[in-house]
Amino acid sequence: MTTSSDIASLVVQEFWRLMATNNFQAVAAVLAQDFVLEWPQSNERIRGAANFTQLNTEYPAQGPWVFTINRIVGNGEAAVSDVSVTDGVQRARAISFFTVEDGKISSMVEFWPEPYEAPFDRTKFVERIE
Amino acid sequence: MTTSSDIASLVVQEFWRLMATNNFQAVAAVLAQDFVLEWPQSNERIRGAANFTQLNTEYPAQGPWVFTINRIVGNGEAAVSDVSVTDGVQRARAISFFTVEDGKISSMVEFWPEPYEAPFDRTKFVERIE
Repeated sequence: MTTSSDIASLVVQEFWRLMATNNFQAVAAVLAQDFVLEWPQSNERIRGAANFTQLNTEYPAQGPWVFTINRIVGNGEAAVSDVSVTDGVQRARAISFFTVEDGKISSMVEFWPEPYEAPFDRTKFVERIE
Repeated sequence: MTTSSDIASLVVQEFWRLMATNNFQAVAAVLAQDFVLEWPQSNERIRGAANFTQLNTEYPAQGPWVFTINRIVGNGEAAVSDVSVTDGVQRARAISFFTVEDGKISSMVEFWPEPYEAPFDRTKFVERIE
């Protein structure tokens, strides 16, 4: 389900389209001057398009990154995307909260949830997804 | 930042208010007949309010669950919440995608991101959040 009629969702779609080129400098086109990205899980904050570009360029990868948008929920000013990411070997899922101002991304807060085992036996209440 | 003028965000706020009572049967008031919750990380799907209620009631806890809403992004039909959860000992963060139909939650897809170490040395591009 993608809500594409609001500017925030459209900018987020463009962000992921540019990410998929693997030319991370190109992504700066949709980042605001004071762009800030936070990764709460690793307690890291990236300030500015230059740091974002460099970090992504240096990220160890086995092949080009491929991004699959599972869902975008947006309301014009903010949007959240659920995206699957792979380089052919590593597989991950990014949940990203975007704030969009004047057509550019001013902030992102991004989560990378990883597989885990059920913390207690609750099989009688659940089924397998797949 | 909370967008509270849309029905999806309002229903999600009510969901977390009811969760905070720790009377999980009460939460059924905002769940649709065909409610389905998916936890992709553990490959688990819960069908129906009864299973949801029972599972939450049996979840091992040290004390009452306290929920802090960090953010809700909604657009009337869907909403995403970022919520911190604790029982005084366990601390977690839930990122939940809700679909709302006729004022009730018909589906949830929920992620539980956990802390991790940065996967490579990228300290020159980042700062600590806190």
